[in-house]
Amino acid sequence: VSLLDKDAFVARLRGEGSKRYHDQHPFHRRMHEGALSRRQIQGWVRNRFYYQTRIPIKDAIILSKCEDAAFRRSWIRRIQDHDGQDQRGQGTTNEPGGIELWLRLGEGVGIEREELLGFRTVLPAVRFACDAYVSLVRERSLVEAVASSLTELFSPELMSKRIVAWEKHYPWVKPETMAYFRARVPRAPVDSQEALAFVLANATTRELQEACLRAFITKCDILWALLDAVAAAYPDERPVEG
Amino acid sequence: VSLLDKDAFVARLRGEGSKRYHDQHPFHRRMHEGALSRRQIQGWVRNRFYYQTRIPIKDAIILSKCEDAAFRRSWIRRIQDHDGQDQRGQGTTNEPGGIELWLRLGEGVGIEREELLGFRTVLPAVRFACDAYVSLVRERSLVEAVASSLTELFSPELMSKRIVAWEKHYPWVKPETMAYFRARVPRAPVDSQEALAFVLANATTRELQEACLRAFITKCDILWALLDAVAAAYPDERPVEG
Repeated sequence: VSLLDKDAFVARLRGEGSKRYHDQHPFHRRMHEGALSRRQIQGWVRNRFYYQTRIPIKDAIILSKCEDAAFRRSWIRRIQDHDGQDQRGQGTTNEPGGIELWLRLGEGVGIEREELLGFRTVLPAVRFACDAYVSLVRERSLVEAVASSLTELFSPELMSKRIVAWEKHYPWVKPETMAYFRARVPRAPVDSQEALAFVLANATTRELQEACLRAFITKCDILWALLDAVAAAYPDERPVEG
Repeated sequence: VSLLDKDAFVARLRGEGSKRYHDQHPFHRRMHEGALSRRQIQGWVRNRFYYQTRIPIKDAIILSKCEDAAFRRSWIRRIQDHDGQDQRGQGTTNEPGGIELWLRLGEGVGIEREELLGFRTVLPAVRFACDAYVSLVRERSLVEAVASSLTELFSPELMSKRIVAWEKHYPWVKPETMAYFRARVPRAPVDSQEALAFVLANATTRELQEACLRAFITKCDILWALLDAVAAAYPDERPVEG
């Protein structure tokens, strides 16, 4: 069991991701085919919001595990991308962060921001899955925590498809409320390449490489479990039998 | 045991701080009287550096404990003050952060930055005390973690005194290498007022208020222990007896 070279490691990662990333989940497939009802889209937006709010928390944990100021200076951008930034000394927000954009997406599909912010309609299984992501990042090593973010290697394609699919199939969603998806398309590749470079440089034994692959797989499972829960709670609406 | 009103709580805090803050420590008193040797100043700079490097780590833990994006947007400034900021997308540093300024202070008193960065000369008791600060922030509630930062209420006066004392008594330290102290004088009051407002708003029971006061006292003890360790390892140099 010797160290995988860079190409072999990336091939393993891409192989696991192509099987396990949630773009293959039936709920996502149906979303992108235009088969979901308004109620199902709302259910997804509502529950995925809890995941979105965990991102700056898990990224702050990653910051706290890192001894290298240069890496922290770069990684902190992820927190700002989700929280937005204050003009120093003025307390006003420069441009909306990802959490604010998701609240606007909620409004665009007909959910009050207060409902989202209160987490009242978050499904228990969604909470467990998202909290498991925060726990993974807290409990495992820095390099494994960073590896768990590598699902972003796959997200630009999914986001791009989603924008096209929603514009085509769900005309009742105002296009400007999809700004979150648009913002992620250019940012996710920058973030994922940075994370991949860190994992390649720091997973210096085969054991660490395998641990990173396990963390990545667990992250795929978390995203998948989120959709399983949403699909179960918001089933396809069938004609009522008489 | 009813809730202390704002004035009574702040009075308790200031009372504890005036007895326990490390400006009263014999090593600090002697530093400001000009009684320390170059070797003692170096010993302090060397060991205090480990404390400085714990600050962005403990502040990232505080971020990760907070569910409020607005509070995170404000608190994240502390990490940037110590780590510096990257120009987005360019990977270059805007202006030096506190850790870089401390490295320059080290150079100013005759310590190579590689020595500081390697932590090789950090005393075990200093490491224990600083790690206890990180553990406190990790293990206690958010409001207690924030309360532990309130020693900053006392730091601008200490920093201001230090600049004057060093310029007077230690002319071998180049004044420009004291930029860290100068930078903290205006920033610490902003930071400490923000933290105090958070504690006043969130310590909503007498029990929480007392827990916050305990966290603050432990923080004072941590700063004191650091100086005890430095004073023991770098004793006053007495004439050699014959």
